[in-house]
Order: sequence, then structure tokens, then C-alpha cells
Amino acid sequence: MNEAEIIGRLRARFPRIGDDAAVIGDQVITTDMLVEDVDFTRTIPIEFIARKSLAANLSDLAAMGARPTYAVVALAVTNANDIDPFMNALGDASKQYQIEIVGGDLSRADKMVVSIAAVGQAERPLLRSDVKDGDRVYVSRPLGGSAAGLTLLKRWRSVDPPADLPFAQRELAQSAIRRHIDPEPEVQLGMALAAIREVTACIDISDGLSTDLHHLCQASQLGAGIERERIPVLPDLPMHSAALGVNVRDAVMNGGEEFALLFTASLRESELSARVGRPVYAIGRMTRDRRVLLDGQPMEARGWDHFASSR
Amino acid sequence: MNEAEIIGRLRARFPRIGDDAAVIGDQVITTDMLVEDVDFTRTIPIEFIARKSLAANLSDLAAMGARPTYAVVALAVTNANDIDPFMNALGDASKQYQIEIVGGDLSRADKMVVSIAAVGQAERPLLRSDVKDGDRVYVSRPLGGSAAGLTLLKRWRSVDPPADLPFAQRELAQSAIRRHIDPEPEVQLGMALAAIREVTACIDISDGLSTDLHHLCQASQLGAGIERERIPVLPDLPMHSAALGVNVRDAVMNGGEEFALLFTASLRESELSARVGRPVYAIGRMTRDRRVLLDGQPMEARGWDHFASSR
Repeated sequence: MNEAEIIGRLRARFPRIGDDAAVIGDQVITTDMLVEDVDFTRTIPIEFIARKSLAANLSDLAAMGARPTYAVVALAVTNANDIDPFMNALGDASKQYQIEIVGGDLSRADKMVVSIAAVGQAERPLLRSDVKDGDRVYVSRPLGGSAAGLTLLKRWRSVDPPADLPFAQRELAQSAIRRHIDPEPEVQLGMALAAIREVTACIDISDGLSTDLHHLCQASQLGAGIERERIPVLPDLPMHSAALGVNVRDAVMNGGEEFALLFTASLRESELSARVGRPVYAIGRMTRDRRVLLDGQPMEARGWDHFASSR
Repeated sequence: MNEAEIIGRLRARFPRIGDDAAVIGDQVITTDMLVEDVDFTRTIPIEFIARKSLAANLSDLAAMGARPTYAVVALAVTNANDIDPFMNALGDASKQYQIEIVGGDLSRADKMVVSIAAVGQAERPLLRSDVKDGDRVYVSRPLGGSAAGLTLLKRWRSVDPPADLPFAQRELAQSAIRRHIDPEPEVQLGMALAAIREVTACIDISDGLSTDLHHLCQASQLGAGIERERIPVLPDLPMHSAALGVNVRDAVMNGGEEFALLFTASLRESELSARVGRPVYAIGRMTRDRRVLLDGQPMEARGWDHFASSR
């Protein structure tokens, strides 16, 4: 049983499950749990674990086009000394994104676990299912950084690149690792997109572009055709990938935890970029043909799956 | 650093933290995380782990006098086969208590972790801090069952008492274990109390009567004097406690996860019981003297503390 099958069964029982966040009137609510040694390792400084656990929830709110309002945090620690730095960083991040932490629960565990539930306000929530045939498929920013950063973090077991790395590779490596340990949720963009009627659906790239595009297609009962050369890639990543031993194609297509937005709109790239006041990237179109194609060839979902049978 | 000190520091940073649930307009929100081998063991059938994780949240809503509305669940499992029975039981429990599960997150971990966040509606939320000097202190039902059940569960490593136990002890043991593995949140009572103006404060007994009474006194900046003989005890527990090796006094005073309500009201016991249509138990009074006294002697908080220095 993989994650898609499990989610399918849950949806049969709990009908509101399925989007990035559940819609209740003009509110949306989401939850994300991060588990040590599954979703992160303690190589990552605790401040970034705190920021990332909030970012995962904020990214879900962003994908709904919601304004963050409040959140509760449940935290299990291996050592009570972790609580203060975690909560200080969470407090700073919550100020930055204007979401109030209103409650919580503390526990002990053999591995650190963070579970946050966040609530947002959305007049027009962006669902996954409102896509129209012929809509353009967009991503909000260059991809590949988070997965490249994870590869390097696993190899070096440190957030700092080796001291003897050439300067340009070092710069790129630091930037990729930063994308992985401190991903920026697209809160402002999500709210801007929700205000544009021609934007028809939105999801955040948490499992990987290939997998999340499949999620969007399944929810809308449409297919998609995207073009590799139009997919924006973290600048300088291709140039240094061989030297750093990073598979760029895999990082861009299947890398999870990007927290970029993947969305659809009838508007052209130049017009939509102008409307939101920053570049966004059209990478293809939604199609009545329900297949998901990359440069005309079937594209499998190869992103993150907590319950893939091979694991 | 113990839990009270930790919570004190958190409250300085996140001012809304401190009650059983946070109040946002006419909504309240709470979260509780249960971790395998810290908060429960797999001796408990998974259906009851699911019910109890929801009950912990519902009890927080009950303590606020709130009507449950919706919840999100984050679940980390060691085995994907646990997901179906967990979610089926959670679905049934959510129907029973009329709260809708609207979203969730699934993960893997070496130990099972459940974190639920629940939202409720409350026109007049029952805070901990609105107590008045001279108010009667109430508990909602007989105590001691949950802690007695936990003692027996740990000893027998089974939810079923040994086959050779005498019938009356067996009945009592089953009843106590049931209180521990399937505690009933006082949702209806909480809502009824919130509708009575003379009810001034409420908290649920999750850490133990002694500790939660201290919480109530700290929040209200008052003290309390309670009488042991007025505290209701699970029927037949005292009679069988010696044979079963259960410390009744400790179970009643310090046993956690009772999910009974501890509340204050100016009304007399007979009148308040009549108003809510069931027995409730006055066990003492709130006092201007800020000490917490049991039969006139200082009573320490000896209930559950995730971060007690002795652990």
C-alpha cells in the first residue's frame, strides 16, 4: 500500500481530506508532523527545525491562498533543553509570517517530533479541483535547491560545506542547503493568486513536482503536458552539479519540500507575473487527455512517498 | 526544569498559552500529542489509542465549555497496517462526539505518535482565571479509576485481568482499565456548565487532581481548601485496592488522564447537580489564602509531569 492508496481510503471515510488544507466556511486548517530521522536529522540546527515545521504548515495555507491566522504546536523532545531554542525560533518565525502561536502541548520521546496545526482565513480558497482544460501550469520559483541541499547535507553531515570546496561550488552548496533547511513558504504569493479570478487551482510542491502534478491532475480529473526546458532551475545548480555529485534532473522533477507553489491559470506568463508583481513560470498546460506528459512522454510520480513499498 | 517552569517561560513568549485551549473570538483550539512508550504502550489495542487521542482533545474543549466542531490528525506509524484500524476507530469516535475530522498528515516513525488539534465553538469560554474567593470546588465524577487501571495494565501487560482473579476484583479491574484506555471526555457537561452563569472556572483533570487544582489556583491567584472525605472515588475501588495492590489515595489525588472536570461555582451541590441533570461533587472551596490545603494541611502537586527532574 503506498501513500496515494492510503489517502484514497481515508478520503472515502473523511470526505474533506484531500486538499492542502481543509476548508471550513471562510477558514482553512492544516496539520503537518515532522519526525526526527524520518523527516529531518539533528544535523540541522534546532532553530531551523522549528522554522521548517512552521513553514510546512504555512506552505499548505499558501497553497489554499489563505492568510495565516493562528497555530498550535505539539512538541516531543528528547531533552528539555531543546524546548527554549525551539520555541524562541518558532516565535520569531511566527512573527515573520504574522501567524500567532496560541497553544501547544509538550511531551518527551526517544526521537524529536513536531506537529503543528495552522489555521488561515480565505475568502476564495484555491482548491486542487477547479482547474480547467487548457489552463497554463505554473511553478512559482526555481526548483531543485531543496533536494540538492538534502543530498549534500546527507553526504557532509553538516550544514557547512567542506572548507576546501572551491568558492563558487561552496556558494551554490550553501544556497541549496539553505533552501532545504529554511524553505520559504509562498504566503504572500498564495494570497495574491487567490485574489486573481483567472487562477484556477493551486498546490504546494511538498512531495516533488512530478508527484504533486499528478495530485493536481487526479483532483481535477485532467491531464497535463509540461516542457522540461521551461521548468526553472536553481541558478548555477546545473553548472556545479557534476562537481557536487547532484542529479539535477531528479532534484528538479522529484525533489520534495520545495514549498514552491504549483498552480494553474488561464493568464499568460507575462500578464500573470505583472499581476502578482514578480516572476512566475509557465511550464505547460492542463489537458483533457488525462495522461501526465513531460516533453510528450509519460511522466511517472517519483517524488516522496512515506509508504512506498520499496522502503 | 519541570513542566510548570517550562510552561511559565512559554507563556511569557506566547501569551494565549495557558488554558486548556486557546480562545480566538468565539472559537477555541487545542492540541495534544501522545507518544508510544511515553503516553501509552501498544498493550492497548490500537482502536483505544485512537479514541484516547481524540478524547484528550475533546476533554480540553469540554474544560472550556466548548462544542466540538472539527479536528485535524497527524499520525506517525511504525507499520502502515496500523493506519486503517486507527482511522476507522477515530472515525467512529468522531461521530460519537460529533466532531468532524477534516484533515491530516501521515508519517512513519520508530514509535507511534498521534497529534490531534481540535477546534470548538464557545459563546462563553470557561477560563481557569475567573474563579472567585469562596466559590465551591467541584469534580464531575468519581476519581481513581484511570490511575488504578494504568497500574494493573503495567503489571499484567494486558487489558484482560488474569483468569484466576475472583469475580468482584475482576469486574473492578476491568472497569478501572476501561477508564484508563477509554476515558470519556465530559463534552456534554462542559457545555452545560458554560451555560450556567454561576460556574466560574473549569479545567480537566489530565495531570491529576492535586496538580490540576494547583493549576487552577495559580491561574486565579487564589488558594483552595478541599476535604478528602468529599472526594468521590470509583465505587468498589477502596474495597479491592489491597487485594489488587493499588494505592487508592495516590490514584485519586495524583492520577492523570481522568478527563473528569474540575470546576468552580458559587452554587450549592444539590442545586448545581439539579441544573446539569446529573450528580456533581463539591469537594471544598476556593480561598483568598493562596495555599492549597487538603483537610487543612498543605497539599503538594504530585501528578503527572513530563519534565520532572526525577525522571
